[in-house]
Order: sequence, then C-alpha cells, then structure tokens
Amino acid sequence: MDVEQVTNWPFDEIEHSYDAKDTMLYALGLGFGSDPLDKDELGYVYEDGLIACPSMAVVLAYPGFWLKDPQTGVNWKKLLHGEQWLEIFQPLPAQGCVVATPKVDFISDKGADKGAVIYWSREIFDQASGSKLARVAGSTFCRGDGGFGGDNLPGPTPAPIPKRAPDSTCTLTTLPQQALIYRLSGDYNPLHADPDVAGAAGFRQPILHGLATYGMAARAVLKTFCAHDASRLRVLDVRFSSPVYPGEAIRFEFWNEGDDIFFQARIAERDAVVLNNGRARITP
Amino acid sequence: MDVEQVTNWPFDEIEHSYDAKDTMLYALGLGFGSDPLDKDELGYVYEDGLIACPSMAVVLAYPGFWLKDPQTGVNWKKLLHGEQWLEIFQPLPAQGCVVATPKVDFISDKGADKGAVIYWSREIFDQASGSKLARVAGSTFCRGDGGFGGDNLPGPTPAPIPKRAPDSTCTLTTLPQQALIYRLSGDYNPLHADPDVAGAAGFRQPILHGLATYGMAARAVLKTFCAHDASRLRVLDVRFSSPVYPGEAIRFEFWNEGDDIFFQARIAERDAVVLNNGRARITP
Repeated sequence: MDVEQVTNWPFDEIEHSYDAKDTMLYALGLGFGSDPLDKDELGYVYEDGLIACPSMAVVLAYPGFWLKDPQTGVNWKKLLHGEQWLEIFQPLPAQGCVVATPKVDFISDKGADKGAVIYWSREIFDQASGSKLARVAGSTFCRGDGGFGGDNLPGPTPAPIPKRAPDSTCTLTTLPQQALIYRLSGDYNPLHADPDVAGAAGFRQPILHGLATYGMAARAVLKTFCAHDASRLRVLDVRFSSPVYPGEAIRFEFWNEGDDIFFQARIAERDAVVLNNGRARITP
Repeated sequence: MDVEQVTNWPFDEIEHSYDAKDTMLYALGLGFGSDPLDKDELGYVYEDGLIACPSMAVVLAYPGFWLKDPQTGVNWKKLLHGEQWLEIFQPLPAQGCVVATPKVDFISDKGADKGAVIYWSREIFDQASGSKLARVAGSTFCRGDGGFGGDNLPGPTPAPIPKRAPDSTCTLTTLPQQALIYRLSGDYNPLHADPDVAGAAGFRQPILHGLATYGMAARAVLKTFCAHDASRLRVLDVRFSSPVYPGEAIRFEFWNEGDDIFFQARIAERDAVVLNNGRARITP
C-alpha cells in the first residue's frame, strides 16, 4: 500500500440527491414491511409520512470502492469491512440532497503477518440548510498490506459485551433475495449476487452485505427500544465478525448499561456471531 | 362517463427511459431471485447478462391513472382492471428507451345495472431502432358507468380453460412485502400499501397489484416451459378474477392445447381463482 497516497487520497466533495423511492428501496433492502399490517414499519416503506431509517446515512455520499484504484497500492482482494460507526445529529430527511467529503483519518500497521487497518470517515451535511446530519466512519482491514513500518495505532475501543444473558432480544428474518434488493441501494459487488463469485471467495452462496446486516441492527433497535420513533436513534456502532447468508434469521441480543445499549447479532441455527461489540444510543 | 371524451382522450406520446436497476427492481417485485443459487432466475435480477422479463412491457410507457381525471366523467372508485393482453414482437431491451401512444379502442355498454367496459391499448416501440417491441392492451370495467345508450360490443374471446386436471403446475410464493416492492415500478396506489385504505375498500389487508400477479404468471411460464429463455414468450393474456394477499402462494395450473398454453392461477389455501382464462404462447 502507498501509505502517503492513501492517507492523502484526493476525495472530491460528494453531492448525493435521493428521493422517496430511494429511501423506501433502502428500507425494503433491510426487510422493512415484512408484516403488511404493521403500521410502524410501514412508515419506512410508504411515501405518505415517509421516515428515513437512520442507518441509511451509511449509503449516502458513499465514495464507492476507491481502494480498488491501483494508485492506492492496496491488495483489494484481501480487504474486509471491519467496523462501522455512526452518529446522527439530526434525523435524515426522507428525501433531499446531502454533501460530504470523505477522508482517511489514520492507518494502523498491525504487522506483516496481520495487515493494516485504514480508519476513514465523512461528515454528512444537508445541502439546503447546511446542517450537519451525521458522521459516518469505519475501518477497513487490509490483510495483505501490513508491515509498512508504521505505528500500531489503536482504533476506537470496541463496545464491551456483558457476560450475562441478554436483557432483551429481537429476531428478524432475512429474505432469500434480500441481498438482491439491498444492492440496488448502490453496492453492486457481485459477491452478493453471483454464486460463482461467492464460491470463488469461499462462500457456499452469495452473502448478505455487511451493511445490510448493520441496517437490520438499526431496524431491531428501532423496534425494540424506540417504538419506531426513528429520531431517537443517535449512535449505532458495530464490528463485523461473520457474514449472513440471505434467508437466515438474525437474533439481536441487547444489554442495557447506563446510557448505552450494547448488542450482538447471531445466527442461532449455526451459532455464529455476525455482528459483535455493538453499541446503540437513543434519546429518552 | 363522457363517452365521446373518453373515446377520443388526447393521449400524448409517452417516452419512457429505463435502466438496468429499473429492470431488476421490476423482476424483484415479481419475486424473482427467491432461490439465491438459481442461476436461471438470477438473469432477471443481476446486471451481468441482464434479461428483461417480457411482462415488464405492461409497466413501460404506462399512461398512469388517467381515468381519474374529472373530465372523463368516470366514477373511478368503481373501476376494476378486467383483462390484460400482451403480444411481444421482439424481446424487450434490458435497458433502453421506448415510446408509445396509448389509445382507447372502444367502449362496450353492459347496461346501467352492470357497467361499461373500456378497451384500451398501446404499441410500444424501441426509440432508437423504431422496431415494434410489444402490444399491450387491456379492459377496464367501470361498474358505475353503464347504461349510456351504447352498444354491448364483445371484447376478445376469453381463453377456454379445459375441464380436465391440469397438465402441469407451478407454485410460486409471494413475499409479505411484495406489493411494497412491486409498487416502486410505478403503481403507487395506496390500496397496495396502506391497511386503512385497503380496509376502506373491503380488504383485510393491502392487496397485491393485479399486474404483479400477472407478472408472476410470466415467471411461472418462463420457469415451466421456456427454461428461462425469455425471448420465447410471445403472448400472455389473462382475466383478473380476485386479488392476491401478499404472502400467499399462487398455484399456476397449465393446459397444453395445440399452439396454446391455457392457464389459471389459484390460491390453494382458500380455493380462490385469482387469474382466469389465461393464455400463453411460446415459440418452439
């Protein structure tokens, strides 16, 4: 990896207009609307009184797969999305135009045998009002790029998961075609659609996007803690630990600790943790 | 109804551009992709080698709900989509631009107690080449507008359904949120999303669009008879007899008679026929 080049990657400001259809399609990609009589969830998938799911921030003003650019020198086939952090300052408009300028915050060298971690972020602003809506940040684990002589810098401390049984749980089923729906929100990586590509990557079938599982965590928090008042969700952080296969049921396990809700997500049928070190914050 | 006005409604030529995302979204609204390992169905929902489902013609260059215009004098709350006919001349491009000028063919007066039937059609042309792609036609039953002193003109003869047991069947499950996905292809009638609107119309929950059930008939024919070679489907005609509730399984029953495939669609669990007098034609 060209550390200097990646650290100072010349991102342009991204302007992203989206309409009600985009907002509904994003929510349908998370499985919202699976009960036709559930009026709470209808709010995310119906234009009359439409609400943007707060996790949609992660697909707004998205810079695309820039690490695939040969100028980065990154071995892009060995990348993994490590962590995702989101802070919401104002509810996302159901439709509108946002702007953001992505940046690389720092790169941590874990050594030649482990790899490097790129920490990146962007602040998303409403174009019309100039208000800051959200800060989206994440880490990308570059398994083939460690040992460049950099410092082993620590990232944000992962949310601790208590040892006790969860205080509450919420199980959400994914659709067999959920990755096919989710990808229409902008991440067309064939790993999520094409059985051959998925097989070459070592998976038995196309996998669900990590950010779709992440969005389902938002859905589970809204359902479990917010009575679907989306404006209450302010923070949603996770570490990705394993992929979900579309069609599986995801069990979200929650622990209340002071102002935090810590959580994990698990596929019960194969006892796999798919999201770990989750943290949500909601306003009272 | 103002028969003169409706008969000579001044339709403009409609130009309709659509892209790969539109084509995939349409197919997802029919439930395509429900088996992530089924490569035949993947062709309709994946941009690499994308195929347009032939039934998509019914949403192309669609004139919208023009009968709601007060100048038609039609009691629009009493309308029902009666029949749908489609003839394909050339496979629809997976993305492109089409043009059509809708027209009213004739109006049949069934009497004051029964209503009137408007027969309408449009021929769809590829804008770039000028080639005729499809003829889309249908009938709209206006239950509140009969007895205007017109002739009781016959429409096309409905396809006969044999008395014997079907020669083959194909069962397709609908998703609980399928109407919510399908409506993003352009028919935003709240009857298909809002439980209150559906309840006011006498339904226990929002109903699936008739044209989504129709599109699933195309899916069933492609699966059962065409090995998913979409270019072989040339004719698809149906009569709508009853709505589908999203989440139900639809059983398509087929009879082969010479060059025709006749079919019905039925909800087995409540023994309701939802599509009747179906006819498909495929090239060998």
